[in-house]
Amino acid sequence: MKASELKAAQQRALRMLSSAGVVLTEDEASHVEVADFGLDRLAVEGLELVTYVNTDRYCAKELVIFPGQTCPEHRHPSVDGHPGKQETFRCRRGEVWLYVEGESTSPIRAELPETAKAHYTVFNEVVLKPGEQYTIPPDTRHWFQAGPQGALVSEFSSRSRDESDVFTNPRIRRQSVIEDQT
Amino acid sequence: MKASELKAAQQRALRMLSSAGVVLTEDEASHVEVADFGLDRLAVEGLELVTYVNTDRYCAKELVIFPGQTCPEHRHPSVDGHPGKQETFRCRRGEVWLYVEGESTSPIRAELPETAKAHYTVFNEVVLKPGEQYTIPPDTRHWFQAGPQGALVSEFSSRSRDESDVFTNPRIRRQSVIEDQT
Repeated sequence: MKASELKAAQQRALRMLSSAGVVLTEDEASHVEVADFGLDRLAVEGLELVTYVNTDRYCAKELVIFPGQTCPEHRHPSVDGHPGKQETFRCRRGEVWLYVEGESTSPIRAELPETAKAHYTVFNEVVLKPGEQYTIPPDTRHWFQAGPQGALVSEFSSRSRDESDVFTNPRIRRQSVIEDQT
Repeated sequence: MKASELKAAQQRALRMLSSAGVVLTEDEASHVEVADFGLDRLAVEGLELVTYVNTDRYCAKELVIFPGQTCPEHRHPSVDGHPGKQETFRCRRGEVWLYVEGESTSPIRAELPETAKAHYTVFNEVVLKPGEQYTIPPDTRHWFQAGPQGALVSEFSSRSRDESDVFTNPRIRRQSVIEDQT
């Protein structure tokens, strides 16, 4: 991801947060995380995040998902004998389509990323509109895509250890690589 | 607390949540918790809450505090060998004055509830404006009061066990008693 693309995504995420009435500190606003999962196709597979707090017991984040953007399939395994991350997604604005393990929905609302279809394997669809929420058990494969207006989702969870996430697509790297940074 | 007072407080809390852009389900809106701590002087000592999720690992709530309203001093002790609740207060709207253990601030912004002054014993003042947050360690005495515009505060925490809270005022009962319910 180019530094200019990162900056543009941060600004777009800030506009979506602001229009939903979310107030951030200057420091938070200048550190919006933009994850392209090392795939360098942010518009298709990517996610924007603000982490409010992440202690050894709980975590709270805002997730910003641009229209049609997909967070790739992954799970949160046990780490060092601690159960994997349990997380609750609460939709605040827009609409998000969440896919978890279980009976496949057919057809699904989401459009699978063309070049990565093989890396999406769970299709039990949960549609979340503003005010609706869903809790994902630990170590459960899931992925999600925003509807045509994009989505703002609050995530409440146990401790977050992004570096331990297991993605179905083996090419994925959780840490974004930023090119041409000055 | 009379049922009519409960209903009025619920409606007022819903208006504050709505004006901050918080979207609730119908079920959540009809179950806003109004805590008068068994003291029956809600305007002085009370709190309004919506609990989004409370698992054995984490909890997320919205707290609505009316102008000048005070949540009485309490702490979250260890329960059954589990460390007490750790919680992060993030101010969303208005201003909240939080008091925790430590060096006393003098003078403090809050006005102590006249009939309960003896039950407020910690005065290290933390002022939270929108976007600002503070994390309270387990088993630490704390209390808070909203400024003149009231406040909306998101609480992120480990598991919530309200029934185990220890209040400095021994008269306090965490469960509200509603009179003249039909």
